[in-house]
Amino acid sequence: MAAALVEARKAGALGEVPIGAVVVYNGEIVGRGFNMRERLQDASQHAEFIAITEANRQLGSWRLPDAQLFVTLEPCIMCAGIIQQTRITDVYYGADDPKAGAVRSLYRLLEDQRLNHQVYVHAGVHAEVASSMLKRFFKDIRQAKKRAKQQRRLAVESLSKVDPQ
Amino acid sequence: MAAALVEARKAGALGEVPIGAVVVYNGEIVGRGFNMRERLQDASQHAEFIAITEANRQLGSWRLPDAQLFVTLEPCIMCAGIIQQTRITDVYYGADDPKAGAVRSLYRLLEDQRLNHQVYVHAGVHAEVASSMLKRFFKDIRQAKKRAKQQRRLAVESLSKVDPQ
Repeated sequence: MAAALVEARKAGALGEVPIGAVVVYNGEIVGRGFNMRERLQDASQHAEFIAITEANRQLGSWRLPDAQLFVTLEPCIMCAGIIQQTRITDVYYGADDPKAGAVRSLYRLLEDQRLNHQVYVHAGVHAEVASSMLKRFFKDIRQAKKRAKQQRRLAVESLSKVDPQ
Repeated sequence: MAAALVEARKAGALGEVPIGAVVVYNGEIVGRGFNMRERLQDASQHAEFIAITEANRQLGSWRLPDAQLFVTLEPCIMCAGIIQQTRITDVYYGADDPKAGAVRSLYRLLEDQRLNHQVYVHAGVHAEVASSMLKRFFKDIRQAKKRAKQQRRLAVESLSKVDPQ
């Protein structure tokens, strides 16, 4: 999970929501990813999605049985879908995502017995670190917006004080 | 849907499960895709996934509000996820997928009121054409396997008839 947190920091440094992921196979990292959705304007560019498709390329197969995924935030529906399809064995995730999490929060898509593969889910792994990184990111965004608003208000006030003559 | 069926035929011609999709925006096709999972050995290469990410590139945005998706088979979990995320307005799909369909068969992921976007779903559009294409594909595969099995059996029989001297 330390490696996934490193990836998350890379996303944060680029102004993306700080989420990171790695895929491990036979004790080695075969895929890394960090959230790049805004920068690439591509809806598929979630951290774990990038890590999984990189692992597909590295191993030359769309199937990843016996692989583990480490991701700092609970996967969404799309990412749960690719995890289930690739037959990844274990998912270790950090913070819960109450609004969009599809592994424990809104759904339990990785443990559905009707599907042809089930995944072992390990929730809350280094959750506090992952969560505080996300909270700080959103707090910074709110503060930046507040500062921009204040600056606009001050500019309008100073314009209204100008003597029209 | 005719354009999506054309895409599906391209997949079938390459020995992939014949599924095709197009994304339409302002009356124009902005993304096309056909299933390429086996050829590319990449789990993300479903028809509608390719069409959606192509539309992201064409329009320079990961959001696709007011776009329509036409796909010959009911989307899986992963594809329902990217559809929901991109804010596509309408999904028209052909055949149901009772084993993995996440739009009507196993789940109704596109109409969940807890998520931040809901999609209008139009099921069964040219379902018979899409379905018969899929059935024919799987029938051909079964027959090819049967022929290969028969040939192996005949080869073993002819070997056993050879006089050991």
